[in-house]
Amino acid sequence: MKIQTLTERIKVANKERPADLVIKNAQIVDVFNGDIIHKDVAIVDGFIAGLGDYEGKKVMDAQGQYMAPSFIDSHVHIESSMVPPSEFAEVVIPHGVTTVITDPHEIGNVLGTDGLQFMLDDAKNLPMDFHFMLPSSVPATPFETSGAELQASDLHPFHADSQVLGLGEVMDYSSLQNADPGLLEKIVQTNQAGGYVDGHLAGLDEDAVNVYSSSGVQTDHECNTAEEALARLQRGMYVSIREGSAAKDLKALLPVVNEKNARRCLFCTDDKHIDDLLNEGSIDHHIRLASALGFNPITAIQMATINAAECYGLHHKGAIAPGYMADFLFFDDLHALNVTQVFKEGKEVAYQGKLVEELRSSFSSSPKITNSVHIPSLSKEQLRIPITESKKGNIIKINKNQIKTDHLIEEVEIESGFFQPSVSKDHMKLVVVERHHHTGNIGLGIVKGMGLQRGAIATTIAHDSHNIVALGTNDEDLEKAIQHLGGIGGGMTLFHEGKLLSSLPLPIAGLMSDQGYEKVAHQLLDIHKDLSTLGFTNDFNPFLTLSFLTLPVIPSLKLTDKGLYSTKEAKHISVSI
Amino acid sequence: MKIQTLTERIKVANKERPADLVIKNAQIVDVFNGDIIHKDVAIVDGFIAGLGDYEGKKVMDAQGQYMAPSFIDSHVHIESSMVPPSEFAEVVIPHGVTTVITDPHEIGNVLGTDGLQFMLDDAKNLPMDFHFMLPSSVPATPFETSGAELQASDLHPFHADSQVLGLGEVMDYSSLQNADPGLLEKIVQTNQAGGYVDGHLAGLDEDAVNVYSSSGVQTDHECNTAEEALARLQRGMYVSIREGSAAKDLKALLPVVNEKNARRCLFCTDDKHIDDLLNEGSIDHHIRLASALGFNPITAIQMATINAAECYGLHHKGAIAPGYMADFLFFDDLHALNVTQVFKEGKEVAYQGKLVEELRSSFSSSPKITNSVHIPSLSKEQLRIPITESKKGNIIKINKNQIKTDHLIEEVEIESGFFQPSVSKDHMKLVVVERHHHTGNIGLGIVKGMGLQRGAIATTIAHDSHNIVALGTNDEDLEKAIQHLGGIGGGMTLFHEGKLLSSLPLPIAGLMSDQGYEKVAHQLLDIHKDLSTLGFTNDFNPFLTLSFLTLPVIPSLKLTDKGLYSTKEAKHISVSI
Repeated sequence: MKIQTLTERIKVANKERPADLVIKNAQIVDVFNGDIIHKDVAIVDGFIAGLGDYEGKKVMDAQGQYMAPSFIDSHVHIESSMVPPSEFAEVVIPHGVTTVITDPHEIGNVLGTDGLQFMLDDAKNLPMDFHFMLPSSVPATPFETSGAELQASDLHPFHADSQVLGLGEVMDYSSLQNADPGLLEKIVQTNQAGGYVDGHLAGLDEDAVNVYSSSGVQTDHECNTAEEALARLQRGMYVSIREGSAAKDLKALLPVVNEKNARRCLFCTDDKHIDDLLNEGSIDHHIRLASALGFNPITAIQMATINAAECYGLHHKGAIAPGYMADFLFFDDLHALNVTQVFKEGKEVAYQGKLVEELRSSFSSSPKITNSVHIPSLSKEQLRIPITESKKGNIIKINKNQIKTDHLIEEVEIESGFFQPSVSKDHMKLVVVERHHHTGNIGLGIVKGMGLQRGAIATTIAHDSHNIVALGTNDEDLEKAIQHLGGIGGGMTLFHEGKLLSSLPLPIAGLMSDQGYEKVAHQLLDIHKDLSTLGFTNDFNPFLTLSFLTLPVIPSLKLTDKGLYSTKEAKHISVSI
Repeated sequence: MKIQTLTERIKVANKERPADLVIKNAQIVDVFNGDIIHKDVAIVDGFIAGLGDYEGKKVMDAQGQYMAPSFIDSHVHIESSMVPPSEFAEVVIPHGVTTVITDPHEIGNVLGTDGLQFMLDDAKNLPMDFHFMLPSSVPATPFETSGAELQASDLHPFHADSQVLGLGEVMDYSSLQNADPGLLEKIVQTNQAGGYVDGHLAGLDEDAVNVYSSSGVQTDHECNTAEEALARLQRGMYVSIREGSAAKDLKALLPVVNEKNARRCLFCTDDKHIDDLLNEGSIDHHIRLASALGFNPITAIQMATINAAECYGLHHKGAIAPGYMADFLFFDDLHALNVTQVFKEGKEVAYQGKLVEELRSSFSSSPKITNSVHIPSLSKEQLRIPITESKKGNIIKINKNQIKTDHLIEEVEIESGFFQPSVSKDHMKLVVVERHHHTGNIGLGIVKGMGLQRGAIATTIAHDSHNIVALGTNDEDLEKAIQHLGGIGGGMTLFHEGKLLSSLPLPIAGLMSDQGYEKVAHQLLDIHKDLSTLGFTNDFNPFLTLSFLTLPVIPSLKLTDKGLYSTKEAKHISVSI
């Protein structure tokens, strides 16, 4: 804040000078009192200067619409949308989101500090504020090969960046519990920089909450039950309620939220694909959903605005009040909550679901960002899974729409001593190919429950190291799908009978498109159509399921480039019994 | 936070090592959910490490008592207690207050940066945390002579002090409204230092609230009505509800507080004398009072703890939860709220209303702190008030227990052309003697409504410049009382028939005692007895009234060393009509 800016704001507040813009005749959501108030809103230089009776150079008649602070997504991995920040902004601004707290964990795993810097740069000069939390857990585990490692010393310089707000989701509970000095150094340096630390307490019990809370970790977005949420609230953590593409927690958690504790509850999307953002919305969707479940929509708006701002020390955000940024939106009905118009720093940025003007005509990225998929040529021999005379294999059993898997032991089809995929048994071959460092690592496994009938699918979105993961009924399609991803710099692809069905190139770190979001959404439609061609049922998202089959921090059986991993045994195991 | 400290805390949270202390069998006030919970509380190195089942080197059975975070006084001028921080701590800790946000505005007006430094130093190494707000308005007005001026450049170095949290109550509305660069520089530099800015919006309307809020001022403790409080809450200000020795606002403001907006409401004492603190308590008194008025005591405890911590960014305070400082207290009953035991950073500091051990045996202050009263010898001529033939004078009419005065014009007694005090007309002589810079300034006026029957009283506590103010029925007692204060380095005194009745020396800046609080309390008892001797009724506090008769920012007629001041005319006026 400068003296000149402050002077101007005071002169407007004091009615000595007209405001840049005055909003009249709005039903203002007062997030401090949980109420609706009726006053003129005076805006100057992107900030609100007064609530009362005001004159402005421009006057807007809100015609009785509701006016609320624009929304804050308190935890989102932009990479999961499959577009970079500048495109992501185009999609969510019309839904009323103008601030996100984002953790570039995915690109960090692929490209390290180069990835972080790309995200920071791409997020600049947009009518949306991206506050970054630095990835705390790269690599997430030692059980897979990631593209990069981020030590405390790598992260340290980023704390000086004004876009950086702290340390991202601390997910490595084992290291935290063991007071691993490398992790603690990351926390301590964040504290010293005045930053915040996010948590990630998937399925963890009260004892673990104590460990997290006592370490100064202040949020969790991984609660699945009201009981878990209460345990975290009681120990001083903010609970961020997630509705993403895969994880949908709002319905389960809402019963724990009441007028007394709502101040400690926020909303987030965490991971949400571009098509879901386009079709369903972002944080606006949370509010509609909560309202439909009988929750007070004004309390929900508080969770989407002032609560998130308070949690992250964003003192000038999340309210329509003097001294706050003029980031707000209009909507027609407290329950339907159709966002009709969005303003960022006093300027209209979206109207009736569309941006008022295009954000950025071109997009810049360097080869080190777009050339991240490095794979060797594969031979058929490398894809063989030997099975002993027991004929039995350790099999990953997926559960549709969950990221937890079960560990099955079943008899499998065998040919010349090697596993043979079987449509009738629903035993598919799963392949993970290391794609960062030319290690030549290939992990092989067997999956049940996907329902693939023919062909193969492959993707470079494979949490958290984002190696290539492929699923197929036959080695030819598997190999071609994998090679195709190498050729296009990563993405998603589907092959059948040796031929490409469709693909979505994601050349930015193998995670994000360098095309516009419309093109991505269009290609995703093609992909979903071709998934049906391969026999998938449409009651789950096979690519989403696939991308979590590589995540060894989630039970029970997973596959990494280092082989089949059992979380129960906490080690890699062989496929054959 | 250091890695070693964090490691130790994690090991205790994780039950690998025993806690230093475990509290069992307490009814814990959960300020996050507004609820009571039952868990063991594990403490290590002064912080809470876990809520659950714990073992400790020491175990305390709370025997079913309530356990709450200890209290935060969100705005207090320690000087008003008439003892320095180290003695103040002795008095309020047993009442459960272990953190204060304090503005050394009074000593700042007398001694400038030397005064601030004295307070910062005296507040160190105590089992109580003093967070300082730097005085923003020294001098408060140009209508009186203060001991010091504090410009932005004087305050700037103090922002680097870890005890300093921001800028104290911005009370000079006229300068703020006029965007005075000197004041704005103070605000901007506070912002740059990451600090907070307190407000002081006595009697100001919604337009003024807009000016304050848009300037980034975030609190007000001067609301007298529910309507005023709502206007501030709606504009994003925290409302600190005051119960002090003079101003008592809780009953009037409580109706505006509800479950939805309580998060933005705090408690403060502002100005409370040592005897009132001893007899009535501090923030504990607010909670009892609120509870007696039918308010939810748990909500009141939130206002006294987590709400204040959130308002001032004290992330590790105000809750009983892992990662929070182990500052807590016990009490027997949610409504009676008798504080039985107080802990600071895990150590018992008070038991049954008494400190467990004396805080400090000796007390250090330099001559520049204790030698602040400089007055010339006075002649009878200097105390004469000439009255013209109209025989009428502009008279200050006090209102008991209010700091606002009325402006009366009445016929007065005259002798040889000069005003003669009259007991029958209740017309007393009021004298203000400049005591900082040997200016020789003497202000003279007439007061009605005090009810003094004989003698004179005088004090160096005279807001905000703290010159000497004296009230008397005759010049001899007036002069002797004033001279006596010069001799003892300031304080309070009463004279009758040329003889000293009693006095309380306050040699620290003429505001605070260098003796123990017990002695001060004892001397105050003597003074109150002698006030009766002089004819005062005991339905108001004459010294308190006197100390605000010099404050020219409050309507209507006041007296400074520069003469009689009319707030309506915004200038000094003559006594004689």
